[in-house]
Amino acid sequence: MKSILIINCGSSSLKYEVYEMPDRRSLGKGLIERIGGSDGHLTQKTPEGKTEYDENLPDHKAAMGLMLKALTAPGGILKSVEDIAAVGHRVVHGGEDYSASVIIDGKVIKAIEDNTELAPLHNPANLTGIREAQTLLPHCPQAAVWDTAFHQTLSPAAYLYGLDRRLYEEYRIRRYGFHGTSHRYVCGEAARILNLPPQEANFISCHLGNGASITAVAAGKSVDTSMGFTPLEGLVMGTRSGDLDPAILLYLLDKGLSKTEINNELNKKGGMLGLSGVSNDMRDIGRAAAEGNRRAEEALEVYAHRIRKYIGGYTANLDRVDAVIFTGGIGENDIPMRERIAGRLKSIGIVLDPARNKEVRSGPGIISAQGSPITLLVVPTNEELQIALDTYEIVFG
Amino acid sequence: MKSILIINCGSSSLKYEVYEMPDRRSLGKGLIERIGGSDGHLTQKTPEGKTEYDENLPDHKAAMGLMLKALTAPGGILKSVEDIAAVGHRVVHGGEDYSASVIIDGKVIKAIEDNTELAPLHNPANLTGIREAQTLLPHCPQAAVWDTAFHQTLSPAAYLYGLDRRLYEEYRIRRYGFHGTSHRYVCGEAARILNLPPQEANFISCHLGNGASITAVAAGKSVDTSMGFTPLEGLVMGTRSGDLDPAILLYLLDKGLSKTEINNELNKKGGMLGLSGVSNDMRDIGRAAAEGNRRAEEALEVYAHRIRKYIGGYTANLDRVDAVIFTGGIGENDIPMRERIAGRLKSIGIVLDPARNKEVRSGPGIISAQGSPITLLVVPTNEELQIALDTYEIVFG
Repeated sequence: MKSILIINCGSSSLKYEVYEMPDRRSLGKGLIERIGGSDGHLTQKTPEGKTEYDENLPDHKAAMGLMLKALTAPGGILKSVEDIAAVGHRVVHGGEDYSASVIIDGKVIKAIEDNTELAPLHNPANLTGIREAQTLLPHCPQAAVWDTAFHQTLSPAAYLYGLDRRLYEEYRIRRYGFHGTSHRYVCGEAARILNLPPQEANFISCHLGNGASITAVAAGKSVDTSMGFTPLEGLVMGTRSGDLDPAILLYLLDKGLSKTEINNELNKKGGMLGLSGVSNDMRDIGRAAAEGNRRAEEALEVYAHRIRKYIGGYTANLDRVDAVIFTGGIGENDIPMRERIAGRLKSIGIVLDPARNKEVRSGPGIISAQGSPITLLVVPTNEELQIALDTYEIVFG
Repeated sequence: MKSILIINCGSSSLKYEVYEMPDRRSLGKGLIERIGGSDGHLTQKTPEGKTEYDENLPDHKAAMGLMLKALTAPGGILKSVEDIAAVGHRVVHGGEDYSASVIIDGKVIKAIEDNTELAPLHNPANLTGIREAQTLLPHCPQAAVWDTAFHQTLSPAAYLYGLDRRLYEEYRIRRYGFHGTSHRYVCGEAARILNLPPQEANFISCHLGNGASITAVAAGKSVDTSMGFTPLEGLVMGTRSGDLDPAILLYLLDKGLSKTEINNELNKKGGMLGLSGVSNDMRDIGRAAAEGNRRAEEALEVYAHRIRKYIGGYTANLDRVDAVIFTGGIGENDIPMRERIAGRLKSIGIVLDPARNKEVRSGPGIISAQGSPITLLVVPTNEELQIALDTYEIVFG
């Protein structure tokens, strides 16, 4: 049995989890917040309970030190740091350099640096996490699991924008796609649940969380995805606009908005928050709509309409669809939203069973009607487990 | 019998045509180019032949004077300007003010002015055409036929972007849609050809010309369309990008491109021209691809992939699709492109008959296979005739 430490390092936060492999058993997980300040906070959960730490965390080195302390404290997750057999890092952007998870070496570090321009907030934080882990856990092999890698199988028809080739060649502007680890995980699970050979299955995977994206999978490979050059494109999200007439940006510049203001409108003040005027949380919006708030109701309709459009678009471009998968916080738990989306997809062969839909919340389950040409499936996602699976496979496989 | 003069006035050009109504018979048409210069040129075509004029055309008043001269010259289209019973003007942007064609009065003029901000190149030219026509043809009732009007039946789910409501309320940013006159015309024709009641028919209309858009029609009304706030959004066009991750614009600004340069990349240097590196003309690109040019082939694939995505997306959001209509220069004539698009849509119930497809060029015709759940139809568009029909209807109906 091997204990694999999973690290997802953000600019001021750090998430971790320890998996025992090949048993797929989580031993516990933690979240460190407010790195870079004097009010750092760590919350760790194990099957036995929750522990919390408050500490001055000037930098990621301090945060990672606290993580190791919490991991190995009495009643913690591990007896000793020596028990960590390998580390798996979530890395956001592998550009066109990586289409699968890899052991981290100098070449990988350089690729993360080279792709920083494409993910200026995420890649540097991921890299900091890797470097600190290498220093503190020098005995451990470390693996990079990329958010973009799964989508490197897109064809030019799906990844090229209608732009001068020069913008692709010089500036690397193309569709990359994100949430790859989640889409890959739930497609694997869906194949298992439906007893289909994963390398032959065609799926449309809807990851609906605070960020949201849809991926078309043919014969086990990603062939299209709604997030693009950045995670802004595609679906309407909590605070992100998703698809937009690009000329709107030029119009807003003409109106005197600065680049920063426009960026805020699209990434922080838009999406369900901006449309509903209520919240970026689907539960609040659902409540407001139920109480008669017209804007909240319209926001929910925009959200569902956009998702149906993508499901239909991907159905058209696939030869066959075995199942449509709902995952992510909203996909797994928001029963009324699932009904709003999937209750109106009969024209493309998707028939929801409203009663089954109401029964599936935390676990996986089929929610389509008997005889629906395309199966509808809820599958809880688990990116950390997928990272553990990859890390175990490439280090010990 | 009434002769209706149709005017489509651009910033430096003017197209006109005379229809005899209710016979739907074109008596002739003309194109004036290079208005505002000393090398103005008019070409007029009648069933009898072609005439040309070269003249100094300092402004639209001069251009319209030349038009009347050509119209009434011996061997021209009309005996006298007195024969013109009404004038129909193509007007691009009616904003949210007009959902149908109208007789032009002071209120209409003001609406065209008010919506100029939304169509800064087109509305002022359209207005100039109206004012000159009012001066030169004071005896004629004049009608405005809006490019946006057909799409005013979109629901908020289809017309709202994922943005703060303030941007809709203060800046009027929403999906308007264009090509409305063409989509409306071909849907009317499709209903006639298929012997369906127009007010009950569901269509997906693909207008594929140098500009291109797709519209979903339910019970005779537009319910979604691919062009948005401006005619830039949606399909890949001759030189326009269509859909794009909006963050690409912010990235290009960071790279030091000016607003004008970005506008040129998206509107003039992008689309099929930028992708293929060959031409903005589908015929040139088709030839290059046939000769083994990889970029040309990829450009054709991007074009078809995007169209299939929209057809599928609209199919999903419609309860039923009676027919998918191809129109516009490419939709009517580009047989290989129609096969590239529609030869791979079986998963949503569209089965092309390749042999029938090869037979339909200039006239209308069905190109789907016997038994295809959704009919595929080629319908030549005729915006001028639709404008004549509307003008006749509201002036004499």
